[in-house]
Amino acid sequence: MLKVGLLGAGRIAGVHATAITSNPGSTLVAVSDINAEAAGRLASQYGAEARSTDAILNDPAIDAVLIATSTDTHSDLIERATGAGKAVLCEKPVDLSLARAQACQTVAARNGKPVMIGFNRRFDPNFATLKASADKGEIGKTELLSITSFDPAPPPVAYIKVSGGLFRDMMIHDFDMANFIMGAVPVSVLAVGSSIVDPAIGAAGDVDTAVVTLAYADGRIAVIKNSRRAVYGYDQRVELLGSSGLLQAQNMLENTVVKSTTAGVSSAKPTYFFLERYMPAYAAEWAAFVTAVTTGTPLPVTLADGVAALAMAEAATQSAKTGLPVTLASVLG
Amino acid sequence: MLKVGLLGAGRIAGVHATAITSNPGSTLVAVSDINAEAAGRLASQYGAEARSTDAILNDPAIDAVLIATSTDTHSDLIERATGAGKAVLCEKPVDLSLARAQACQTVAARNGKPVMIGFNRRFDPNFATLKASADKGEIGKTELLSITSFDPAPPPVAYIKVSGGLFRDMMIHDFDMANFIMGAVPVSVLAVGSSIVDPAIGAAGDVDTAVVTLAYADGRIAVIKNSRRAVYGYDQRVELLGSSGLLQAQNMLENTVVKSTTAGVSSAKPTYFFLERYMPAYAAEWAAFVTAVTTGTPLPVTLADGVAALAMAEAATQSAKTGLPVTLASVLG
Amino acid sequence: MLKVGLLGAGRIAGVHATAITSNPGSTLVAVSDINAEAAGRLASQYGAEARSTDAILNDPAIDAVLIATSTDTHSDLIERATGAGKAVLCEKPVDLSLARAQACQTVAARNGKPVMIGFNRRFDPNFATLKASADKGEIGKTELLSITSFDPAPPPVAYIKVSGGLFRDMMIHDFDMANFIMGAVPVSVLAVGSSIVDPAIGAAGDVDTAVVTLAYADGRIAVIKNSRRAVYGYDQRVELLGSSGLLQAQNMLENTVVKSTTAGVSSAKPTYFFLERYMPAYAAEWAAFVTAVTTGTPLPVTLADGVAALAMAEAATQSAKTGLPVTLASVLG
Amino acid sequence: MLKVGLLGAGRIAGVHATAITSNPGSTLVAVSDINAEAAGRLASQYGAEARSTDAILNDPAIDAVLIATSTDTHSDLIERATGAGKAVLCEKPVDLSLARAQACQTVAARNGKPVMIGFNRRFDPNFATLKASADKGEIGKTELLSITSFDPAPPPVAYIKVSGGLFRDMMIHDFDMANFIMGAVPVSVLAVGSSIVDPAIGAAGDVDTAVVTLAYADGRIAVIKNSRRAVYGYDQRVELLGSSGLLQAQNMLENTVVKSTTAGVSSAKPTYFFLERYMPAYAAEWAAFVTAVTTGTPLPVTLADGVAALAMAEAATQSAKTGLPVTLASVLG
Repeated sequence: MLKVGLLGAGRIAGVHATAITSNPGSTLVAVSDINAEAAGRLASQYGAEARSTDAILNDPAIDAVLIATSTDTHSDLIERATGAGKAVLCEKPVDLSLARAQACQTVAARNGKPVMIGFNRRFDPNFATLKASADKGEIGKTELLSITSFDPAPPPVAYIKVSGGLFRDMMIHDFDMANFIMGAVPVSVLAVGSSIVDPAIGAAGDVDTAVVTLAYADGRIAVIKNSRRAVYGYDQRVELLGSSGLLQAQNMLENTVVKSTTAGVSSAKPTYFFLERYMPAYAAEWAAFVTAVTTGTPLPVTLADGVAALAMAEAATQSAKTGLPVTLASVLG
Repeated sequence: MLKVGLLGAGRIAGVHATAITSNPGSTLVAVSDINAEAAGRLASQYGAEARSTDAILNDPAIDAVLIATSTDTHSDLIERATGAGKAVLCEKPVDLSLARAQACQTVAARNGKPVMIGFNRRFDPNFATLKASADKGEIGKTELLSITSFDPAPPPVAYIKVSGGLFRDMMIHDFDMANFIMGAVPVSVLAVGSSIVDPAIGAAGDVDTAVVTLAYADGRIAVIKNSRRAVYGYDQRVELLGSSGLLQAQNMLENTVVKSTTAGVSSAKPTYFFLERYMPAYAAEWAAFVTAVTTGTPLPVTLADGVAALAMAEAATQSAKTGLPVTLASVLG
Repeated sequence: MLKVGLLGAGRIAGVHATAITSNPGSTLVAVSDINAEAAGRLASQYGAEARSTDAILNDPAIDAVLIATSTDTHSDLIERATGAGKAVLCEKPVDLSLARAQACQTVAARNGKPVMIGFNRRFDPNFATLKASADKGEIGKTELLSITSFDPAPPPVAYIKVSGGLFRDMMIHDFDMANFIMGAVPVSVLAVGSSIVDPAIGAAGDVDTAVVTLAYADGRIAVIKNSRRAVYGYDQRVELLGSSGLLQAQNMLENTVVKSTTAGVSSAKPTYFFLERYMPAYAAEWAAFVTAVTTGTPLPVTLADGVAALAMAEAATQSAKTGLPVTLASVLG
Repeated sequence: MLKVGLLGAGRIAGVHATAITSNPGSTLVAVSDINAEAAGRLASQYGAEARSTDAILNDPAIDAVLIATSTDTHSDLIERATGAGKAVLCEKPVDLSLARAQACQTVAARNGKPVMIGFNRRFDPNFATLKASADKGEIGKTELLSITSFDPAPPPVAYIKVSGGLFRDMMIHDFDMANFIMGAVPVSVLAVGSSIVDPAIGAAGDVDTAVVTLAYADGRIAVIKNSRRAVYGYDQRVELLGSSGLLQAQNMLENTVVKSTTAGVSSAKPTYFFLERYMPAYAAEWAAFVTAVTTGTPLPVTLADGVAALAMAEAATQSAKTGLPVTLASVLG
């Protein structure tokens, strides 16, 4: 039974608390948050204690921590938690600074404890099925990957300003998805972005609409489309062309009802946003972490995966500014 | 906070235990079962006590019982539980005997406690959305209802023999669905059935494939198709034609992946059976029960609904044997 | 090269004229109609001559006639045309009177010329694919057939009055579809009908909504649903359950565009009515007739098929009136 | 009645001959081809004469010519035909050389006769519906366009060598589709290509898989994906994100049959290649040409559209080689 401390008590921490308590292999021991009241509320709901982060990290009875705090604390907490001998599952991204993330990776490696990054979409049943099908060779040799990832509505500009930008905040999930499905990182990144959804996003120095092309050493190509606004819901699709077929993971809909009238045939919209869409993925992600940590088997997503996705975001950010392709080697230094 | 005793510790009882414990308005106090070990296991998993049924019914601290025992005990337990002042949610069917169910209805009415019958499909998000759309008049006046309800595989003949037959055991859900959607009971029932899936089912005096037509006083018509075998999964669809459109609630699929190869375009099968398909419905059913009981508002499904569905099953059983239409009035006596 | 005379110059005759002229194995020689002007217009458009029906039937250079006149003339024209040595393709139904159709069948048999009845739906690419898949055993042994057949809007009551009623005029297509797919005629017919779409139809002694259940000697069951009104378009679907799977032929849509907005996800409606939906079927039907007649191979649909469907319509008409099942044997006399 | 000469008697010329003869506003007078036998065969099938190209161009009774010869003859024939006073519909591309196409445009403008380029996909009912919906503002302001265009199988390398390469031969259709839907030409073109389908294609100096990103002056973005091989059929989809919704034009399937078995749920493949998919588009294209020429209204696709698409192909070819973005201005000189 894995004893777990949860760092952070915000909305996503609540999702993780459910996953931890409903998993037969783990138990939630303690919750911390800079907002003590929030920590108290979450802890009591799930039968755990509210503590300070220090108290959690110093408790030898706690085996693992789940880091669900703000991004700027991730690197520090990964270093401290692994230093304290804890296995770690940390929300993405590792950091907004690639250099800081790489330094964290060095420290964590020295500490020798497993660190998994929360790329929850790898555990979505649809994407996981697509990946498994491709790995079984059901469409032959993979050639061309296409990822569509649109949020339902743009966040406030205040959030945009501290987010690290669309590539580090939003497309980072898709970079990891590309790495997951292609089983390799690309050689170069080519980004075209603009702010046509909301001029205020452009004024803040970010883009809200972007297309990124990834070129791989073996000639394969991937393309990622992002928009901060798809008014019909959370649009999350993956499409993979191979030498003997095509795989598509389509959206999940709110229900299966179809209405036919003189106005046409209509069905439900995609599930609204990430909590609705990826709820099963969060549970599967946690189960995979528990299994890997308790059996000593390799983690399905590593800190290195987090650094790779961040490097791609860095390259895309540069490419979108210059209009030129950026090699991954150049940003990795 | 509704304090709940769970009668029965089988597979469906486990589903209910999850619904009870995860609902913020209810808590699971005790579990009983004729198999004491099963009761103990389930109770301990959900932090409750294993007790005798008597002990549960006699405990004044318990507000409600959920009856998930075998069908032949339902009527007795409904009578005893309401007599002991408990609110009741009882799995369907009320009884295999219409007369016994009607007697139970009389006793329960005298006892004056709310009794809800577990027609979980009313709470399926797809069927509930279809019903809400029809009630809002989105397809005008309703005219023709069609229910497709196929199980993935027939049960053992030993089960068939004690089940009360396809109409009372399986189609009873669809009778209730018709009552739910049409908002009325039919005038007459016309059944055609045969045993072509498994001759052993026919030898046991039952049918495994049936079409039942329901005629309503206002000229509306409903048709229900049942088969004990749909090898591709649990096929659960409803289709409602109205004066200004059509509503269809389609199957839920295991995932959204589509594969295109030279062999064609293929997608996932329907979710396999009722636990996979109706898991969200069980949680919503329980939530509706808790709300009704704790606020004193009318139950969304009543013991009368259970009796009506059973009467339709009785009529269909007679009609399938004689080949003639059977009025509901004639079986209600 | 089959030389063809076309009897009738109405709307459906125009469809047939296109099929005849575009088929490399046939040529349209002459057209007749009680409205001489209509015959003239159609003939000139397709490079044929307008003639009297007598002149067509008496012309030894004409090999085949296509009868697209009003229903009350079909039996007479089949008898005269076969008597004159012509191969015949006649629009459905053979006649509104089963006795008259049977008499016609006797005469045609004596005349020894091939007579095909225009059950065009057998040649629809979707239904033909479903049938071929079933015949290849792709879903094992067939068990339960379901046909949905809704017209977009009811015809004028004046038409209803001379139509022979819903079962002879509209459902006759579905009776033939059942015979086509099941490869057998049913033992008994059980109809429930009502007039809820338009009370004037009921006042005229007909129904506008009906469900018919067909019971087969081997225990198989078919169910046909008809409505005179589906405001969203022509709803033509077939569904066949077998021991190892399900086949569904779905509607054809006007286009493949899908629109997703805050209002939901919407797509095009089914093609509006029979001309749009079955245009490819009419061409395929004619091609099959030409092939059979010119090669001397059996016709894919025979006059006997037309009589069988009419007998089922007769049985259904009786059953809808009495509420009792009617055997096919009883109406065939 | 438009009198038409058809230059070329190959496969696509046959498709055009059908469109010309079945259109009530045009008649096919003569056919020419360097293969006199082919011209003779096609002419006799459609009731026209086989002639030399000169004889067609010099015949004052011929109003229009349809150019369906090999690409290297297009510019010359456009110049000669317009010089001879004919209206012209010419198959795409105008030329493999952008400079030559531009020179042709100058000559044709001087000759003052209408020249339409055969971008047939604009007339596909699905894409035309998508465009009309966008133009009506049904998804608000358009932002991000995505075109998927995969051929079922690569052509022989011998064809590749004279084709002008993937961008001029295959993606040129998609460049025109982007211009059609966006209503503007892009500022710059960014191409990533590789030859992973067939190394022989790479050895011939071409790519078989490519992703091209188009950046527009107003910040909008389009992305085009091409592959020479999609084994499941002709994959032709368009997707347009706007400020208030998404439009998708999906593939047309061979039929609507769905089969559900233990192996999954399968449906028909997309129509196999351009003749199957775009047959209705060829007829609609010709109808639009006839209407524009006979009424003197503007052509729906012009020679300028052909030059614009060719310029984008030229830019993409350069970009794929250098890895750098290429502005349209730089190739237009």
